[in-house]
Formats: sequence, structure tokens, C-alpha cells
Amino acid sequence: MSSDRLSETLLPKRIALPVFASDALSSVAYAPDEILLTLGLAGGALALTHSWLVALAVVLVMVVVVASYRQNVHAYPSGGGDYEVATVNLGPKAGLGVASALLVDYVLTVAVSISSGVQNAAAAFSFLRGHEVAAAVGLVLLLTALNLRGVRESGRMFAIPTYLFIGSVLLMAVVGGVRHQFGKLPQAESAGLELLPEPGYESLGTLAMAFLLLRAFSSGCAALTGVEAVSNGVPAFQRPKSRNAATTLFLMGAIAITMLSSMILLARWTGVQFAENPAVQLARDGVPVGDSYVQDTVMGQVAKSVFAGFTPGVVVVSVVTGLILVLAANTAFNGFPVLGSILARDGWMPRQLHTRGDRLAFSNGILILAAGAIVLIVAYQAQVTKLIQLYIVGVFISFTLSQLGMVRHWNRHLFIETDPAARRRMQRSRIINTIGAVVCGVVLVVVLVTKFVHGAGLALAAMAILFLIMTGISKHYRLVSQELTVAEDAADHTRLPSRVHAIVLISRIHKPALRALSYARATRPSRLEAVTVSVDPEETHALQEQWERMGIPVQLKALDSPYREITRPVVEYIKSLRSDNPRDLVVVYVPEYVLGRWWEQLLHNQSALRLKTRLRFMPGVMVSSVPWQLHSSHGQEPPLTDSAPGDVRRGDGR
Amino acid sequence: MSSDRLSETLLPKRIALPVFASDALSSVAYAPDEILLTLGLAGGALALTHSWLVALAVVLVMVVVVASYRQNVHAYPSGGGDYEVATVNLGPKAGLGVASALLVDYVLTVAVSISSGVQNAAAAFSFLRGHEVAAAVGLVLLLTALNLRGVRESGRMFAIPTYLFIGSVLLMAVVGGVRHQFGKLPQAESAGLELLPEPGYESLGTLAMAFLLLRAFSSGCAALTGVEAVSNGVPAFQRPKSRNAATTLFLMGAIAITMLSSMILLARWTGVQFAENPAVQLARDGVPVGDSYVQDTVMGQVAKSVFAGFTPGVVVVSVVTGLILVLAANTAFNGFPVLGSILARDGWMPRQLHTRGDRLAFSNGILILAAGAIVLIVAYQAQVTKLIQLYIVGVFISFTLSQLGMVRHWNRHLFIETDPAARRRMQRSRIINTIGAVVCGVVLVVVLVTKFVHGAGLALAAMAILFLIMTGISKHYRLVSQELTVAEDAADHTRLPSRVHAIVLISRIHKPALRALSYARATRPSRLEAVTVSVDPEETHALQEQWERMGIPVQLKALDSPYREITRPVVEYIKSLRSDNPRDLVVVYVPEYVLGRWWEQLLHNQSALRLKTRLRFMPGVMVSSVPWQLHSSHGQEPPLTDSAPGDVRRGDGR
Repeated sequence: MSSDRLSETLLPKRIALPVFASDALSSVAYAPDEILLTLGLAGGALALTHSWLVALAVVLVMVVVVASYRQNVHAYPSGGGDYEVATVNLGPKAGLGVASALLVDYVLTVAVSISSGVQNAAAAFSFLRGHEVAAAVGLVLLLTALNLRGVRESGRMFAIPTYLFIGSVLLMAVVGGVRHQFGKLPQAESAGLELLPEPGYESLGTLAMAFLLLRAFSSGCAALTGVEAVSNGVPAFQRPKSRNAATTLFLMGAIAITMLSSMILLARWTGVQFAENPAVQLARDGVPVGDSYVQDTVMGQVAKSVFAGFTPGVVVVSVVTGLILVLAANTAFNGFPVLGSILARDGWMPRQLHTRGDRLAFSNGILILAAGAIVLIVAYQAQVTKLIQLYIVGVFISFTLSQLGMVRHWNRHLFIETDPAARRRMQRSRIINTIGAVVCGVVLVVVLVTKFVHGAGLALAAMAILFLIMTGISKHYRLVSQELTVAEDAADHTRLPSRVHAIVLISRIHKPALRALSYARATRPSRLEAVTVSVDPEETHALQEQWERMGIPVQLKALDSPYREITRPVVEYIKSLRSDNPRDLVVVYVPEYVLGRWWEQLLHNQSALRLKTRLRFMPGVMVSSVPWQLHSSHGQEPPLTDSAPGDVRRGDGR
Repeated sequence: MSSDRLSETLLPKRIALPVFASDALSSVAYAPDEILLTLGLAGGALALTHSWLVALAVVLVMVVVVASYRQNVHAYPSGGGDYEVATVNLGPKAGLGVASALLVDYVLTVAVSISSGVQNAAAAFSFLRGHEVAAAVGLVLLLTALNLRGVRESGRMFAIPTYLFIGSVLLMAVVGGVRHQFGKLPQAESAGLELLPEPGYESLGTLAMAFLLLRAFSSGCAALTGVEAVSNGVPAFQRPKSRNAATTLFLMGAIAITMLSSMILLARWTGVQFAENPAVQLARDGVPVGDSYVQDTVMGQVAKSVFAGFTPGVVVVSVVTGLILVLAANTAFNGFPVLGSILARDGWMPRQLHTRGDRLAFSNGILILAAGAIVLIVAYQAQVTKLIQLYIVGVFISFTLSQLGMVRHWNRHLFIETDPAARRRMQRSRIINTIGAVVCGVVLVVVLVTKFVHGAGLALAAMAILFLIMTGISKHYRLVSQELTVAEDAADHTRLPSRVHAIVLISRIHKPALRALSYARATRPSRLEAVTVSVDPEETHALQEQWERMGIPVQLKALDSPYREITRPVVEYIKSLRSDNPRDLVVVYVPEYVLGRWWEQLLHNQSALRLKTRLRFMPGVMVSSVPWQLHSSHGQEPPLTDSAPGDVRRGDGR
């Protein structure tokens, strides 16, 4: 896609909503589960009485975050990702902190979404039970393959499953609500069970109880991941960009809140009992149900109650939920390489990731992301509950720093703005962002405190390591750049080597060698000689005789190699040339074969490669590779295009 | 070690024996076990009555093989490995067959010897029980590290453990024999047990019994592996080389036969009951001993009986046996890369393995060997009995083809020899080699028939795959060589490109770029221009302005890149140059950084590398890399020496 053409593919709100909201909305599939099972640690009563409270807290945070990001959208119509906002307003280190958090969170997004998708699908397709890890890894590999192949996401690809998901959850809420009103809502399978507290949670004091509520709240905050996606995507909206983006953000928030509340209500009405450790915690007549009990997701249990007697309804909910979770994972496959490219542009990541369209960089990003997600899925056995413990830290680090950055942004603008109306708007925005920063900061502290030992500490460590690596890379680039800088008035470019001494390396007399010779001769060096390493005196003698028979008009010099080495004699010969005439330039011509297949490459050019690698360390020496294209190489050229597969439109630096 | 110095390190017989015989002698540590347990499948009676018969058959084969190889030693004083003998006399395909067999067998030598070493050591050091796989893998890794580091084997390193092993086994035989004569030899621990037949082997017919005897014989033939080593090593002997080598071969055969017979006798005298599946097959008063029973090796059980009441004796036997088995494994670490080098010389393997002293090739060989052995050890849980099933096939393929080759050798010489005395000697040798070929061929058939389903088939498949790969490599080299050959009267080398068009790639103005410019100018091309790819018009504009400010006396051309690509614009520009002036040579100067650490390399030069890779496919284009050495590169040059670690003296192509 050409740079110019980016602007042609602007999105109307009805497409932008599913494109940017799939990640945020999909978390409705697992956030209620996490709230209920955390509360359930203290037994069924707490979940029954307090789940609404926790849900309400999550909803309030959602309102604050959505309101805050609406300010971002207006302030950065060019699409200020959290990384950009933090970097511009709080400095590069803050930006790097956001970036580290986001990179880790992308990996977790894939792991959590895919694991949850498999668990949801298993509610309808029970053959998946017991093979969750394999199924999840398989899905990650599938996404990897699709993204490596460069399958483009179309707006429609997002729209259909997202709207189906929204529609089916809302339909479930309506049907469930109506049936509940008429007293005809069947109870969930698990409603007949008793939810026992986990050992150690039997009789909690007030403080411990509050701590557990906070922990449930932390887990519930998983519902907020992905909310920031719209703010990165402002440039992709149709005009008026900012207003359309803000509206979309509002719609997304409203839908997410409705769905989350509905799920919590439906779970309560259908009497779902949801346990972290169902085999032990769930009991029938005082006897634990044991390992044979299969606990469906809350979504699955609710669907089975609401659509009792109408199996297709259950299947649709299950499939659509699985689909949107896979889509949510796919957004990470887009975002991760793009963030990498932005970090590379700023010198935090290897520069070759920068060229936005670089296929290789894109592929590497995809592979790293997939590998990380697979490691997590295998390590945590595709258990959403365990993965969730690592999640969210990153999101709230990023939210908090972004909102702090926005406060700074308004401060800066208020410093110079004089128009009273504009100032009022800015002050209003600043208040909203300040609230956002405070709330997100508090949530971050809550998350860290309640989950540190459960996994958040690990995520934090991973972020710290990334932070240090990127700092190191940046420092390296800075040092190299300093070392290479030339003063503009320097005369470096006027100093020329006095003479050129050309050496053509010869092992046998064949076409590549003759081509190298004729190229070397064509450059008319001050001095030209052919050089061969004499590993076997007989072979060398035969070579010399053939050389003379053919009347090649260049002198052939044989370097002795008593230890049967190639590199040392050549390097030492060149060293002697250099010390005899230090101002001369030595050009070494190396004949090489070009072959079509990778395994053919392995069979050739290896000693030439080693020699070339060594010669690079010698100042005043230049290596010229003279390729000879073998028939097998024809049509095997690497592709000219190094542009990326996939749609760059959704590129975000969230 | 210099080529010239090889002759200085000739071995007297007393050192040559341990150096070349450790592999062959070490098999006494496991061959008796395999004979006994195979016979034991049919119950204790068969082992008692027929083990001497099987041992006798193995001894006879040993006599034949030793006699045959004494002919090889005389005929090929330059050290004719089986590969050489087969290639010269039967043609390259036969040689390749031998080579495939030997490569597979080297891997098995390591796996079998190390596994057996661990099992023998466990007889004295019971803490190894249950950790055999880990210990075996650890030993392989240790050997790998030592060989990669290039620790040299000295003759003494071989001599001491080998003579200790011979001495302790013979001492055990003498002490055991004397005690037996006086009726004072204690029975083995297992003597009180009953050896039950395996299910299915309870009442065997004559044919099945004969088959089982043949299978036991096949396993016992493991005692013959390594016998051919002397014939490869003739050049390393002191003069008269052939006679000394023949004498050493004779001594080795005599010692091996004595040790093998002694072990079989001692096992019988001490009443050792040895089972493939001890938990089920061994019974006390009719009740199987179960999984808790620990079965020592035959060597261990015999030692415990013979040296009953004298624990140091048992420990010494155990340690020395373990040591010589590790030494035997180490011979494969020497032989494998050397055979690889010989195969590379003949075009069957990647040519870079040829340079005998090539450290990289040597390292690769060592790593491949170690990886193969570790895979086998883990796959077969370090169980010698299972590994033995794959072994021996290769050895006897190699023996048989080598002996057939020797028959051809004598036929050829008899065709031209006229001296009657010489003819008589040759005819005698031919008879011996014919017997050798027939016996080895029969053993090979027996091994294949009795063990095909137990693992020999797998080994054969591995050899076939190697054979095909090497045939493919050889074919590739032949085709390339044909394509590159120049007729000596061809005028290829007189045709010169008419003009040189030099292009210097510029991304920024820094020292490497200026160096590339000045080198390019120094070569005085017909036309010279600097070229930059304009990914970002603003950056390009700034670059052009700086260029003019600095007064660089070369024109800077900016290539448009609407798709933010680097490779395509450059390639297409060069294509246009080439089609405008097809007879011109285009030289592309690429400024590059040279850095010290590998991870630094990853951070630079990547787009240059990609471009260079692509340009290699364009005829008439030459790429000149102009390196700029950064401070961090100083002192980080790759080592000049590419010579091999380890002693090349024992290099064999057995």
C-alpha cells in the first residue's frame, strides 16, 4: 500500500466500531468469570451479595477511562497512542515504560483471548475438553500463518462477528430478562451445587474480605483492556475524525458496560456457581463434585439456561464468542509489529524494524509474539484465570502514564492559550484526564497489591527486562552515531587513497574466477594480481601450468599454507601489502556462485564467506564480491518488495 | 600441526595397541551380556548349555576378521580404510555405502559405549541407578566439550586405561579360574534365582531355537566392532609399518578372544542369571523378583563374585570398564569428522568439510555426532540391549564390502603379477579375504534376519537416507562443476566490460559513507554517482542540502520510493542502467559498520545485507563492501587459525 493511498480507506463509524472495539468487547467473555470465581474463593454467599458491587466499580472505571480517552482523541487527531502521548508529554523514559508494558500485554492479549476462546467453544463442543492447550496452540499457529501470509483484514471481517457477538449477548440479556420477569428462567446446572470456600478463606475478617473484593475488582478490570485502541486509530476515521472517534468510543463504552452488567445479572438470576477450583469447591449435598465435574464458562452456563430447549442458541453464542476472542487476539498480531516499528524509529529497537513495510521485520514481530503467547499458554495450561493474574498491570501502567501525559499536555496548552472558550474546554478536559490518571493510578496500585504474588510481579519483571534491553539498544545507537558523525567542515571526503592494489582470489580456473578477473581488470587498478592459497603443492602446480597455457595476462601468486589454512595466508599477505604501502587501498575480488536453493548455498562459498568476514576488520581493505549466477538461480531472486503483508491501516502505537 | 610434522609422531606397538584397540576391546564389557540375555529369553537352561557355543561362533568370526584385516594392512600400507578399499576396488557407490554405514555406526558407537559405561559404573556406584539417561547425556556433553576445545589425546591417555582394563579382566579371569579350581569361587548374587522364559518363548521348536541362537550370535558380534581401526592407522605405526600393524592386529584379536571367552566362562562358573526383563523373568521360589530388583552387568556380577570380600577389586573393574568405554566413544569423536573430511574431498559431503584442519567443519561434525548420540540415548533410555539391535549392521556392511574389495584387489594384482612367490602370497591372501567376505556376508545376513524388526531395519533406513543425501550432494557438485568449466582455448578472460559505472549508496553523511565515496573515487570509474533512496522527502531534502554545503564533488541522486521500500528502487535503477549500457560493469559501493559483538551486528547493516543478497542475482553487477571499523570491533577479529583441534594422527576413514 502506497503512503499516498492510506487516506483513501477511511472508515465510517459502523465499521470503525467493530474494527477497534473487538478487543475491548471480547473481554466480556472472561471478565465476569474472573469476578465471580475470585469472590467465590470465600464461598457462594459473597459472590451472590457482592458481585454487583465489583461489577459496578469496574463499570465506573470504564466510564472514567472512556471519558478520559475521549479527551485524547480530541487532543491528538493524528492518532496519539499511549506511547506517543507519554513520550511527548512525560519524556522518552515514560514512553519507553509504556512501550514495555504494551509489548508484554500484547503477548498476554493473545494468550488470554485464545485460551478464553477455546474454553468458550468447549461449552458447545465438548470434544475440546482435555485438549485445550493443543487447541489454543493450534489457533495461535493458525493466526501466525495467516498473518505471515499477509491475509488482509477487511472491515467486514471484523464487523460480522463483532456485531453478531454484541447482538447475541444483548439478545441473551433481553430473553433472559423477560423469562426472569415471568419467573420462567431455568436455573443453571451449577445452581443446585453449593459453593464452598477455599481452605484458608472460610471466615475472613473485614480487612481480608475487602482485600478479596479488591482482588475480584482487579480481575474484573480485564474488561478494560483494548479500550484505548480507538485513540490510536483516529486517522483512520472519516471526517470529522476526532468527533467520529469520540462517538465511537462512547458507543463502545456503552455497549461494553451494558454487556458486562447483563452478564453479571444473568449469572445471578440463573444461579450460576462459579469456582476457581470446581472439583473441591463445588459440592452436592456436602460432597465435593470431584475432578469429573466440567465447569463451563459463565457465558456458556448462562446461554444454556437462557436458551434452554433451544440448542442452536447455545451453539451460536459459543461460536460467536470464540470468534470474537480470536479476532481480539489477531489485533495483537497487528499492533505488536507496528509498535515495534515505532520503537525502532525512535531508536529503542533494532533499526531494521523501522521501515514500516518491512516484510522481514513484520515476520519477526509476528513470530516473537506467537512464540511468547505459546510459551504462556503451555506454561499456564491455557487457564484464563492464571493468565489473567499477569494481565492488566501493563494496561494500567499505560493508561496511567497516558493520562498523566494528557494532564501535562493541557497544562502546556493552557500556558499559551488565551481564548477563554478554548481555555474552558481545556480546563474541563484537564479535570477529566486528572480524574482518569488518579483512577487508573489507584487501579494500578490495587492490581499490583492484590496480584503481585499471583503473577503481576512476573509481568512487571518482564517489562523491566524489556525496558533495560531497549535502553541498551538506544545507548548503543547513540554511541555509534557519535562515533560516525563528521564535522561538516571536515575534509574527510577529500582524502583519497593514493593507489589501488587489486587482488583476485583464485581457487580454480572456472567461469566465476575469469569473470572476477575481467571485472578487476576493467576497474584498471594501479596494480593487479591473482592470488591462490597453496594448500596442496601439486594442485597449485597444476593450476599454475593451466594459467600459463591459457595465457591469462595477470600474474598468479601462490601463498604457502603449511597448516592447510585459507584465511591466515591471505590476511597476512594483505597485512604485508598494507604495511608496505599504508596509503594504498587494497581491493579483494572474491568470485562467488549464486545458487537457487538454500541447501545449495550451504554447499558453496563457505571459506570465501569466512575470509570476507575476517577482512572486514582490516582498515584500508575493501571486498568486492563478483557473483556468477548459476542456472539454478534463475527465477529464484528474493522478492523485490520488502513491504509488509497485512493492513497497515490499523497500525497503532497504543 | 603442520603437514610436514605428521611423520614425526609414529607409534610403537605398545602404544598403538591401546590407541587403536580401545574400541574393539571395550565391547567385552557388553557383548557377553547380550549373548546371555538373548539366550535367557528361552529360560536359564539354554544360556547354561549354549552360551559357550555362541561365544565360540563369535570367536571364530573374530579370527576370520582379524586374519582378513591383516591382509588389508599389508596391501594398503598407506592406511586403507574400508571406505577407501571399497571405493578403489568396487567403485564409488560401494564406497559410499560403506561410508553411510560407518557414519551411522559412529553415532551408535557413542550411544552404546556411553550407555554401557554408565551401566557398568552403576555396578559400583549405585547412586547412578535411575539416572542413567542423565549421566549418559552428561558424559556425551563432556566429551563434546573436550573435543570442541580441542583437547589432544596422547598415546598415554589411551594406554593407561586400556592396559588397566585388559589387566583387570585377565586378573579377574586368573583369580576366578584358580578359585573355581579349588571350589572356592563364590556364586553370583543372581545364581540363586531362577531364570524364567519370556512369554512366547516357553517351549521353542528346533527352528525357533536355532533362530534364537543366531540372534544371540548377532548380538555377540558387537564384540567385533572396532577391529578394523588398526587397518586405517597403518601410517601411524613405526617401521616396518605393515608388519607392526599386522602384529598389533593379531595381539588385539588374541586379547579380545581371551577376554570374551573368560567372561563367558566366569559367568557360567559364578552362575550368573542374566535376563532381558529381570523384573519378570527372574524368580525366587517361583515368584518374580519385581521392579525393585537391580540387575548388575555381567562384568559387575562376575567382579563381585571373583573379588568377593575385596571391594577395591570390584570398584577398580567398574571404574576401568567405564573409562575404556568412554575412550571408545571418544574414538568416534575423532573418526566421524575425519571421515566427513574424506567424504568431502570426494565430493559426497559439503566441500567446506574437506579442509582437513577446518575448525568449523570439525566442530560441526562433533556437534552432529553428539546430537545424534544424545537422541539415541534418550529415545532408548540408555539401554544397551535396545541400542545393540541397531548396531552391528553397519559394521558388517563395511566389513563385507571391504573384504569383497580386497578380493578384487588381489584379482587385479594377480592379473599383472608374474613372480611366482608373490603370486602364491597373493593367492593365499585372496583365499583369506574370500573367506572373510563370505563369513562377514553370512553374519550380515544373520544380523539382518534376526534383528531387522528389533531395530536393524531402522539403522538400515538411516544409512539409506544418508546414502541418498550424499548422492544428491555429489550430483549437485558435478552439475555445478560442468556449468562452470571453461574451455582452455576460450577467450572468456579476454572479454572486458567496456566501462565501469560506480554507485555509492548513501543513507546519511557519516564517516562510513565518506570512506565509501573516497574508495569509489580512488578506483577512478568511468562514471561515479552517489545514490540515496528517498523514503521520507524531508529527510532526503535535508541530506541533499548537507551534501551541497559540504561540497562533496560527486552528484547525489535521490531515488523515489513511494512504497517506503529500499531494495526495489535501487534494483530498478540498476536495471535501467544495465539496459541502457549492457556492456558496462556496475559497481555498487555499500558502506558498512563493523562491530565487535554479535548482538551489535544484529542492530546494523540489515537493509544493506538484503540489498546485497538481491544484487547477487544480477549479472554485470558487482557489490563492494566498504567496512568502517567501529571502536568496539577492535580486538574482536575472528581467529585467524581455522585449523582443527585434536590430534589428526588417528584420523581414519575406517
